[in-house]
Amino acid sequence: MIKQIDGGVCAAKGFKANGVHCGIRKNRTKRDLALIFSEASASAAAVYTTNLVKGAPLTVTKAHIADGKAQAVICNSGNANTCNANGIEIAEGMSDLLAKELGIKAEDVVVASTGVIGQPLDLAPIASGIPSLCSGLSSDFEASKLAAEGIMTTDTKLKEISFSFNIGGKECKIGGIAKGSGMIHPNMATMLVFITTDCAVSSEMLQAALSEDVKHSFNMVSVDGDTSTNDMVTVLANGMAGNAEISSEGAEFDLFKEALAKVTTYLCREIARDGEGATKLLECKVSGAKNEATAKVVAKSVICSSLFKAAMFGADANWGRVLCAIGYSGAEVDVAKVDVSFVSEAGRIDVCKNGAGIDFSEEKAKEILTKDEIQIIIGLGDGNGSACAWGCDLTYDYVKINGDYRT
Amino acid sequence: MIKQIDGGVCAAKGFKANGVHCGIRKNRTKRDLALIFSEASASAAAVYTTNLVKGAPLTVTKAHIADGKAQAVICNSGNANTCNANGIEIAEGMSDLLAKELGIKAEDVVVASTGVIGQPLDLAPIASGIPSLCSGLSSDFEASKLAAEGIMTTDTKLKEISFSFNIGGKECKIGGIAKGSGMIHPNMATMLVFITTDCAVSSEMLQAALSEDVKHSFNMVSVDGDTSTNDMVTVLANGMAGNAEISSEGAEFDLFKEALAKVTTYLCREIARDGEGATKLLECKVSGAKNEATAKVVAKSVICSSLFKAAMFGADANWGRVLCAIGYSGAEVDVAKVDVSFVSEAGRIDVCKNGAGIDFSEEKAKEILTKDEIQIIIGLGDGNGSACAWGCDLTYDYVKINGDYRT
Repeated sequence: MIKQIDGGVCAAKGFKANGVHCGIRKNRTKRDLALIFSEASASAAAVYTTNLVKGAPLTVTKAHIADGKAQAVICNSGNANTCNANGIEIAEGMSDLLAKELGIKAEDVVVASTGVIGQPLDLAPIASGIPSLCSGLSSDFEASKLAAEGIMTTDTKLKEISFSFNIGGKECKIGGIAKGSGMIHPNMATMLVFITTDCAVSSEMLQAALSEDVKHSFNMVSVDGDTSTNDMVTVLANGMAGNAEISSEGAEFDLFKEALAKVTTYLCREIARDGEGATKLLECKVSGAKNEATAKVVAKSVICSSLFKAAMFGADANWGRVLCAIGYSGAEVDVAKVDVSFVSEAGRIDVCKNGAGIDFSEEKAKEILTKDEIQIIIGLGDGNGSACAWGCDLTYDYVKINGDYRT
Repeated sequence: MIKQIDGGVCAAKGFKANGVHCGIRKNRTKRDLALIFSEASASAAAVYTTNLVKGAPLTVTKAHIADGKAQAVICNSGNANTCNANGIEIAEGMSDLLAKELGIKAEDVVVASTGVIGQPLDLAPIASGIPSLCSGLSSDFEASKLAAEGIMTTDTKLKEISFSFNIGGKECKIGGIAKGSGMIHPNMATMLVFITTDCAVSSEMLQAALSEDVKHSFNMVSVDGDTSTNDMVTVLANGMAGNAEISSEGAEFDLFKEALAKVTTYLCREIARDGEGATKLLECKVSGAKNEATAKVVAKSVICSSLFKAAMFGADANWGRVLCAIGYSGAEVDVAKVDVSFVSEAGRIDVCKNGAGIDFSEEKAKEILTKDEIQIIIGLGDGNGSACAWGCDLTYDYVKINGDYRT
């Protein structure tokens, strides 16, 4: 049984965290430097953006965890350290400074950055912040929150979650924090997500679990269709729960994957809900597809449609835009078999049957669509493939936030 | 020499047009029914949306011009006649009523609709409007404007253009009208565009010219990434200029294609400029690509980025978002060779060289980006491929217009 618990990235045994303001961001009330530390060396797995333009920290992290091991994660917000001539040097500098302070190897540091692209990142504030960042490390729930705050940019809500589960009689814990609000359209990875667990898992199996998971979780989220240059999801597993290391497939690996999916699915929904300017979480559930791939393409296409997103902002049951987005998705679909319904806590309304409109109460539709969490249920009547994608509405505030982000 | 002239779709000899309010739209000041008529049977070519959900009028038109001939175009706004159980019946009814009134064959009618998807279209107002629509046909410039008004939905500006050119000593004319403001992301076609010419061109060569042209024109426009269900571009060529029919490739066909491109390029820019809520026309010019296909993918990716579009609304020289969009475009690009500049009537500013930021005056950048027509100049330093794409900024008004389009 997988049970939700408190603790975030500090829930798992042997993990500490902290977040401070070091001066990268002008606003002194905003933390801009976060740290997660494992007392023991941990198996490490990661997935990265597929954007050809890659943040320098990703290149450095990739090299550092090539051996499947890591012990600390450092991340700054306010500057993406991307498209800078000296980006690699700076990312390595961050690792070196942290490693020295913690007494670990620089190769055991995962380094990440998020913020504006193309502005030189100064090492000075980071260097000055690292001592207090490390001295303030703590394993309590508050510490996880401080780290989660330190990686936020335009996020309005702190995103963290944790669960416990049982492997071979040993209680294991897993938790994660995430940031992500704009430039969200991950492909093989997402914005920054850091997950910790004390479950013993070999780095190979940890990578296998993560790589499989992101296909159903972060790769199915879109806020604005823009795939970031700095997307990264990492998991550290330090084995301190004491279970026999999971090093092959089987029931224990399946349970671990299930716990991992609980963390990632929760964080996906929170990222979409906190999409820049969003007032509503949209969850598109597709079933009856020829296969899973088709269902995914359809779900993602609907979630990505600017017109549909704007309609949801206006609580307008404009299902024609759902059909339109299905039609241009590129998926093989028989449009004459498509059913569409909208669901929220106010109830369910069917709006399209077999590809054509049906009579429905506009009043009831409005009532359903004014809630802050909307499900779009699509039946394709063509097989057993299903998928789920998450997004948000397109609002005035999205435009406002992004019309002048740098200043 | 190709010379701009007045006349729109009535510029070419033998073409008449009209536009009336028949009652599909509630607002009686908005025309909702348009007609273009050729005195002589004309070669006809068309391209259609690639959306799997296709408006019923497209299916009917496709059948009607299968023989490469047409004589009239009827188009209503206010209702797309799409995803309706009786859509084909209604589109055929429109053709039949018009053909009877004009004394032509129903098979020579091109029929089109634009507006809300999924609401039954009533034939009654159209039937009642057709007599005055036909009796009011005229060949003057005003008539082309009336037709152009009749096809507008959320468009704020009437879109029309015409040119004259000379084939074998005969003066030929070509002109077009267009509607398109939202749900603009054509793929093999676009929103509604009707082009007329008195140049004699065989229907095969006319189709060849159009199919080639849309790759560089309408397929390179995007307002919001949503490919409409009702996109259609048609050209009617009635041969009344008296030139020897163009029936093979050669210098005359090239000149005809050049004149056609003048019409389509102009209309593309006007569609993008009048994108829903837009305050700015964005023109993205890519050069130095491996090949043309790569240049197109890059140009379109930048033009489609919500984040970049919002930055342009805010006159924010956030070139990192340009790099980001290039990076996720899927095109093969060496990001370390990318240069980016912004150009408007206020001047030019280089913002990125070899994939990294360079010092520039934010003040000058702001001055350039507050103009209403912005060029984004991208050099890839990797070959001779080039392309151009058009789009617009993302604004509060886009959200407003689409938050409650149906009501």
